[in-house]
Amino acid sequence: MTVYLVGAGPGDPGLLTRRGGELLASADVVIVDRLVDRRLLEEVPEGATVILAGKHGHDPSASTTQEQINALLLEHGARSEVVVRLKGGDPFVLGRGGEEVLALAAAGIDVEVVPGISSALAVPALAGVPVTHRGVSQAVTIVSGHNGTNGDVDWAALAASGATLVLLMAVAARSGIAAALVEGGLPPGTPVLAVEWGSTPAERRVATTLGALGDVHLEAPAVIVIGAVTDLAGLTSDQPR
Amino acid sequence: MTVYLVGAGPGDPGLLTRRGGELLASADVVIVDRLVDRRLLEEVPEGATVILAGKHGHDPSASTTQEQINALLLEHGARSEVVVRLKGGDPFVLGRGGEEVLALAAAGIDVEVVPGISSALAVPALAGVPVTHRGVSQAVTIVSGHNGTNGDVDWAALAASGATLVLLMAVAARSGIAAALVEGGLPPGTPVLAVEWGSTPAERRVATTLGALGDVHLEAPAVIVIGAVTDLAGLTSDQPR
Repeated sequence: MTVYLVGAGPGDPGLLTRRGGELLASADVVIVDRLVDRRLLEEVPEGATVILAGKHGHDPSASTTQEQINALLLEHGARSEVVVRLKGGDPFVLGRGGEEVLALAAAGIDVEVVPGISSALAVPALAGVPVTHRGVSQAVTIVSGHNGTNGDVDWAALAASGATLVLLMAVAARSGIAAALVEGGLPPGTPVLAVEWGSTPAERRVATTLGALGDVHLEAPAVIVIGAVTDLAGLTSDQPR
Repeated sequence: MTVYLVGAGPGDPGLLTRRGGELLASADVVIVDRLVDRRLLEEVPEGATVILAGKHGHDPSASTTQEQINALLLEHGARSEVVVRLKGGDPFVLGRGGEEVLALAAAGIDVEVVPGISSALAVPALAGVPVTHRGVSQAVTIVSGHNGTNGDVDWAALAASGATLVLLMAVAARSGIAAALVEGGLPPGTPVLAVEWGSTPAERRVATTLGALGDVHLEAPAVIVIGAVTDLAGLTSDQPR
């Protein structure tokens, strides 16, 4: 009996790994984040149990807490052969996968991680933006905006680092974060590309600047890319699928 | 006629995306980085042209320059239906994919990017290390060590940022980089996990500290993860495959 933490990738079912697809097709139980593209659930075998977990849009009372998810993993991990925990993007990139691994390991349940394509990297790529580019940026930082400027992140240091910045879960706090980055030395004219619902048919791209980021209309979930590499957008033939 | 920049992922053929696998199986020409796992080439259809390109170990005279690779892409992109440019990890994460896109776009050849799983994230994940973890780190920086401390990277700012650091192409310059990070404020006792040949049968993991990183034996290619999250290694059941 094993629980597989499988990264679903950014949305497009073609961007799931082959190993992830095999596990999904042989699952007895699938515990899936609500944000994961529903097309993937069509691949779950008939008779398998599918449980939707995680945040439920704007209705907190219908959301599953991390403690409830951990309890579900322990319950099914102890009695089913193949339990797939399907998470958006990569389970270990701002996905709380580490907490799920710790809970399962503490209970003596085998857990295997199957990495997925992180939205933080794939969503810019599909817009033609290389997060690193010779002569422009030799580093990229993926950072959570969940706690705004109140968390452990040193935004001034990130502004000074020279790395391309990719913000996840930052739509709500984007004004404060942008101000902190400008205070840390990034010019207000620094180009920004924000992508809502990246790699899904609902994808929407917004090109702006750091100084104007707080004023553009933007809805979650979105990936926000900050840096000169965003000027390279649009050269590829990729389309949302 | 389209050139597809396909990310091969870290090595394990199961970590290729399904879209990448489909393209590989329908390719007329495959131009592949030498570091890409050779098992993937068994999937190229009979009769297709396979061209090995990129660095050739310790023999620079046998290596292909980026200019030569770009010329190959233009030549085959102009006359073959499906050209797959197969690159290790993700084409846009320290992979020079942006330069290939620019060269193709300038020549009017269609180019599509198919993201791959970056070794920078997957190799730690397969060792059980979440690059971000609640209460430990809310950010991760992927950075090239190719230019050591002589490039555009502000290592002191990265040391101050609070982000987990993942170094690629840093084996040769690791002593100087570690010293710059300590000078920037990271304690010499900061835990480090280095992984040679991650996700392949030759994988080797070395746990050390920032202060000792320059002294441990380490050979390229390796992924070097710096930060408290590396203390979580070893809880999963993953094995190199």
